[in-house]
Amino acid sequence: MQTVFSSIQLRHAPVHEISDGQVKAAVETPSRAEAVLAQIRDRRFGSVVPPFEFGPRALRRVHSQSYISFLETFWERWTELGRDGEAFPFVWPIRSLRQEPLPDHVDGLLGRYSMDAGTPLGEFTFAAAKASADTALTAAQLVLEQGHPAAFGLCRPPGHHAGVDFYGGYCYLNNAAIAAQWLRDYGASRVAILDLDYHHGNGTQSIFYERSDVLFLSIHADPRQEYPFFLGHADETGEQAGTGFTRNWPLPYGTGWTGYEPALEEACRWLVVYRPDYLVVSLGLDCFEEDPIGGFRLTSEDFKRLGARLARLNVPTIFLMEGGYATATLGINCLNVLQSFEEARRELAA
Amino acid sequence: MQTVFSSIQLRHAPVHEISDGQVKAAVETPSRAEAVLAQIRDRRFGSVVPPFEFGPRALRRVHSQSYISFLETFWERWTELGRDGEAFPFVWPIRSLRQEPLPDHVDGLLGRYSMDAGTPLGEFTFAAAKASADTALTAAQLVLEQGHPAAFGLCRPPGHHAGVDFYGGYCYLNNAAIAAQWLRDYGASRVAILDLDYHHGNGTQSIFYERSDVLFLSIHADPRQEYPFFLGHADETGEQAGTGFTRNWPLPYGTGWTGYEPALEEACRWLVVYRPDYLVVSLGLDCFEEDPIGGFRLTSEDFKRLGARLARLNVPTIFLMEGGYATATLGINCLNVLQSFEEARRELAA
Repeated sequence: MQTVFSSIQLRHAPVHEISDGQVKAAVETPSRAEAVLAQIRDRRFGSVVPPFEFGPRALRRVHSQSYISFLETFWERWTELGRDGEAFPFVWPIRSLRQEPLPDHVDGLLGRYSMDAGTPLGEFTFAAAKASADTALTAAQLVLEQGHPAAFGLCRPPGHHAGVDFYGGYCYLNNAAIAAQWLRDYGASRVAILDLDYHHGNGTQSIFYERSDVLFLSIHADPRQEYPFFLGHADETGEQAGTGFTRNWPLPYGTGWTGYEPALEEACRWLVVYRPDYLVVSLGLDCFEEDPIGGFRLTSEDFKRLGARLARLNVPTIFLMEGGYATATLGINCLNVLQSFEEARRELAA
Repeated sequence: MQTVFSSIQLRHAPVHEISDGQVKAAVETPSRAEAVLAQIRDRRFGSVVPPFEFGPRALRRVHSQSYISFLETFWERWTELGRDGEAFPFVWPIRSLRQEPLPDHVDGLLGRYSMDAGTPLGEFTFAAAKASADTALTAAQLVLEQGHPAAFGLCRPPGHHAGVDFYGGYCYLNNAAIAAQWLRDYGASRVAILDLDYHHGNGTQSIFYERSDVLFLSIHADPRQEYPFFLGHADETGEQAGTGFTRNWPLPYGTGWTGYEPALEEACRWLVVYRPDYLVVSLGLDCFEEDPIGGFRLTSEDFKRLGARLARLNVPTIFLMEGGYATATLGINCLNVLQSFEEARRELAA
């Protein structure tokens, strides 16, 4: 399996975040990608190729133009005010407040285009997010255009919390949604997204919530207990044309493989019924038992089971990296999924 | 004029806030109230009396029970998790996210019940906010029950950004709204609120937006340029039964008395037409030229003009302290309003 990665993605290097109610050291750091790359090399897993640089069209198919422009021009506007260092939004247009008109001031725009305070904007954030989206698109292209059975987009920053016009949860551009939409635009009839991150992929869900051409399935920590808190409940099943085409499996703190596997099996049954042309896997590794911000108990061995199970679906698969913050074992867990997938796939073909 | 104040209000002592996109030292500090108290003593302005301790009913008339319970029980829930120090919310239920069901986890509730990250919750926040609301209610009571022509509630923390079920902008309980509602409940037919804080009183506006029995008028920095960014535009004039009973005068950066006075005159004309039984003044002093977070240019002399102008309305008036962060001159500016009001009132009566 080929891995797509660009070193531009490393240039986004947050220092702080606000989480658990306090200012803390950032956990979504460049070292995460480096840890995965090191394992790819150690295991001689396959080649690592740079992404193709896509034009603005693919982003615009998912995100609003005003949001993209904001991300793109933010640093200039920020430094024009004599400011430096990473920026945090600090006020949001919640209920009783207005979405329009847009503020002129960058401080207002920060809140208008975000959902949380855990996600700083810095000088290289947009460049890294754009490279991350290109990485996702290139992985999709390897599968769609070149017929690879699977590809791995080593995306960072991650994407699944980002909505049509907001960032949050360390995510700026929704890599999985951008790849899924691109697959639709270039020939696929049906695309499925399976989100395995510990946190619910609220952005991805909301982007496709009223559509039946992109199935969204997610297994994650119960939002009553965990970030993002305000989406990802079992009763969210899609709306309008999308009714029935969203499925969530919120699981409680402490879930291990015995609690996780039935949800995964159910998701796989949905995938079999839906018969997608392509499967996009939002591959978070933060269900790992030692993850510093996750509360599930999957072991490194469980990630092998996960990869093997996905292979049995026998669908062209684009893996895109999302979260996972136990940096020391992140590469091992990630490669356990990918390598087991590939081995099971090979056995299946034999 | 009597001043109402409780030293319990000093126990809320924020250390940090998140504003202008970065973590900063808190500006809404106990020293603000102390500065005003010092001026009251220096000028022998009048007696300072403690507030009466009101029961829960007056708060519930404005805020939701679930929000009040959250504030009341927050510290216990926070420390149960082994946490300490002031708490900041970090994720908000903006568009595409759900308001219900409520999260179980306190981290989710922090965001569910707030609008910004500038407003920490600490051990004594609720006690101080409750004392601040009692201060507002007692000031209203001095006017309503004892027939004082005016009273000053030295409220802190301030209140005008707090909505039915959220805190923000250094505000937790909406003192002005609580006082206005109490006046209505105890006999007034019509109450007007004139909000003179530099920042728009989004909470107060939203609480009375569909009602004609409480007129809301606000002169403030244009929300396109300033916090709270998402409310306070000139086109917001009320809805339903409240249509026409909200008026906003957003003014640009750099506004001095020459730009301010016409808006004040217009607001006064509205008050004359409305003929309220009582006037509640949300007295922010952050339109001052040296305010560290404000961009207007009122001088200390201008605050005398302001007080004298309000006296000419000849309406029983409850002054409630809101913002104002130039602590060294805060007492001077505040007392300039109150003393000029009282002097002009005396001349008028003579």
